[in-house]
Amino acid sequence: MPLKTINFQDNKLILLDQRRLPLEISFFQAENYQDTAFAIKDMVVRGAPAIGATAAYGVYLAALEFKNKSKDEFFQGIISAGETLKSARPTAVNLKWAVNGMLKILFKNREKTTEEILTILKTSVHEVAREDIEINKKIAENGNELIPDKANILTHCNTGALATVDYGTALGVIRKAFSSGKTIHVYIDETRPRLQGARLTAFELQNMEIPCTLIVDSVAAVLLRDGKIDLVLVGADRIANNGDTANKIGTYMLSEISQRFNVPFYVVAPTSTIDFCLPTGEEIEIEERDPEEITHIEGKQIAPANVKTYNPAFDITPAQNITAIVTENGIIKPPFKDNIQKIKPSLA
Amino acid sequence: MPLKTINFQDNKLILLDQRRLPLEISFFQAENYQDTAFAIKDMVVRGAPAIGATAAYGVYLAALEFKNKSKDEFFQGIISAGETLKSARPTAVNLKWAVNGMLKILFKNREKTTEEILTILKTSVHEVAREDIEINKKIAENGNELIPDKANILTHCNTGALATVDYGTALGVIRKAFSSGKTIHVYIDETRPRLQGARLTAFELQNMEIPCTLIVDSVAAVLLRDGKIDLVLVGADRIANNGDTANKIGTYMLSEISQRFNVPFYVVAPTSTIDFCLPTGEEIEIEERDPEEITHIEGKQIAPANVKTYNPAFDITPAQNITAIVTENGIIKPPFKDNIQKIKPSLA
Repeated sequence: MPLKTINFQDNKLILLDQRRLPLEISFFQAENYQDTAFAIKDMVVRGAPAIGATAAYGVYLAALEFKNKSKDEFFQGIISAGETLKSARPTAVNLKWAVNGMLKILFKNREKTTEEILTILKTSVHEVAREDIEINKKIAENGNELIPDKANILTHCNTGALATVDYGTALGVIRKAFSSGKTIHVYIDETRPRLQGARLTAFELQNMEIPCTLIVDSVAAVLLRDGKIDLVLVGADRIANNGDTANKIGTYMLSEISQRFNVPFYVVAPTSTIDFCLPTGEEIEIEERDPEEITHIEGKQIAPANVKTYNPAFDITPAQNITAIVTENGIIKPPFKDNIQKIKPSLA
Repeated sequence: MPLKTINFQDNKLILLDQRRLPLEISFFQAENYQDTAFAIKDMVVRGAPAIGATAAYGVYLAALEFKNKSKDEFFQGIISAGETLKSARPTAVNLKWAVNGMLKILFKNREKTTEEILTILKTSVHEVAREDIEINKKIAENGNELIPDKANILTHCNTGALATVDYGTALGVIRKAFSSGKTIHVYIDETRPRLQGARLTAFELQNMEIPCTLIVDSVAAVLLRDGKIDLVLVGADRIANNGDTANKIGTYMLSEISQRFNVPFYVVAPTSTIDFCLPTGEEIEIEERDPEEITHIEGKQIAPANVKTYNPAFDITPAQNITAIVTENGIIKPPFKDNIQKIKPSLA
C-alpha cells in the first residue's frame, strides 16, 4: 500500500477518502476537530482501529485550536471536542478508548503550560498511530499460526491497511500468511450496504496480488455448506467481556452458518476493541444509518422513493459462534469470560 | 398493478422492462423469438412463471416467422426456436415446461394446415397466460391459510405480478392476506446482485399500500434470530421430486437461519415449477451470470477492474429446511418425496 490511510502534516490531518475508492484516489483534509468528526461520521475513514487513531488526531487538532485561550477554556474546548468525536459513531469502542486516552494524558499534565501540554499531546498521538501498526503486526503473527497452507479464507467488510493506521487486522493475518509463503485464496463478501468488501478489500488484495474472488454476501452460506471455506476471518468494532462481538452487519449470519458446518470462525482485533466493562453484547448500542445507504448506490437511486428501511451498521455475533479471538496479546480461546479477563492486566 | 408484465398485441410481445424499474417505466418490444430469448437472458422479464409465459409467446412468434415456409421448414424453424428459448436461462423449469407444452401442441396437430396450426398455437399461448393468472389466484387462496393476523413476513427477490403474468406467487399470498383484511408487515430482502427486492418487490408493495421495510440481505439473519419474523415466503425456479428447491441466490441462507430458530419457511410456486423427473436438487444446473452484475450497479463500476467474481444466480434449499410448498393443487407438507408424487396425476 503506497497510500497512507492517515497522515498528519503541517498541523492538518490528511485522510485517504475511502468513500471514493477504488475508482478515485482522493484525500480529505481535516483542519479541525469538527472536520475530523465529520470524516468519521460520513465514513471518509472507517474501521475501528483507523477511527480510533483519527479521533486521537481530532483531539490534538482541538488542542491546537484552543491553545491561545485561557487554560480553563483550553481544557473545556478539548473535553467538548472529545465528546463530539466520541459521538460520531456509537458502536466502535476504539473511538472512545483513543479519545479517553488523550484526555487522560491531558489531565495528567494539567499543571504544565499549554505549550508543554501541546508537545506531550503531539508525541502521544503519533505514538498511538505508531503503536497501532506494531499491534497489527503482532496480531498478524499470532493469527498466522491459525492459517493452514492452501487455505480458502472467507472475509467480510474491510479490515486491511485502510481500516487501521497501516497493515490491518483480519486482512493483516491474511497478508502475513501470504507473505510467509503460504498458498491462500480469499473469498471477499461485498458487504452491503457500503460495499467495503467490493471497494476496499478487493482493492487491497489486488494490490498485494493475493488471489481472491468477490461474492455477494448471501453466496457465503452456499460456500460454507459446500466445504469451500476452511476458515472465516473477521474484524470487530467492540468485543464484550464474554466474547460477544459487534462487527459489520452480516457477520452474525456468517458466524451462524460457520457454526452449522463446523468451519472455524475467528475474530481478529486489537485489545483496545475489548470493552472489559461490558458484560455481554446485549448492552452494545447498534448504530442505525441513513436509508440512502440502501436506496442509493453511488448517488443513483435504486429503490422506490420513500420506502421504509431498517439499516443497522453492525450486528452482534454471540461468543458461542466464535472459535477464537486473535489479539496482539495472544489468541483467546473459550471460555472467553475467563480468558478475556486474563489479558486485561497486560493493558497499559 | 396497472402495468402489464406481458402483453401481446399486433403480433408483437410487449414486455414491461424490469431492468429499468422502479425509476423508469419503459417497454421492450419483441418482434421475433430471438428478441424474446434476449429479453429472457438479459432479464427484461424474470421470475419463473413470467419466463414460462414469455417463452410460449416466443414459440408463437417463431411460428409466425416461418408460416410461409414449407411445412418441414416451418416445423424445423419452430423446434430450433424452442431450443434457443429453452437455453436462454438454464435453471427455471417453467421455461422448458412452457416451450415443450407448445411443441407438444404443434406435433399433435401436425396433419393440419399451417394456418390452422397457427390459430391453435395462438389460442394455446393465450390460454397459458390466462391460466397462469388463475393458478396464482388459487395459490394465493391456499397460502393465505398459513398467514396469521399481525404477521411479520420476510420475502426474498420478487415473486409478484412482475414475476408472473399477473398477481404473483409468494407475493400473491401476501397480497391475498392483505386484501382479506389481515394486518401484515413485510420485510423485503434487497436481493443482491440484481436487487429485485429493492427495485421490484418494494415497488409492488408500495403500489398496493402494503406496509413494508427494505433491508440488505444479511440483516434477515438478525431479524430471524430476534423473533421479528413470523414466517418466510419465497418463490421457486425449480423444485426436485424430493422437495429440494432452486431459487434466487440467498434463499438457502434464509432457510438455514429460519430452521435454526424454528421460523416457518414456505416455498410458493405453481406445480409447473416441480421437475417430477429430478430426484434431488443436486442435479439442478445453477446458472452463473456476468461478473458485471456484482462489479457494476446501474452501469457504475464499484469494484476494482478485473476482480474475479463468483456469481451464481440461484442456490439450492434442501427439503429439510422447507416447512411446506404451496401450490395451486394444495399445500404440500413433508415427507415431500411421497406428497409431491401425490399431486403429479392432477397435471394435464
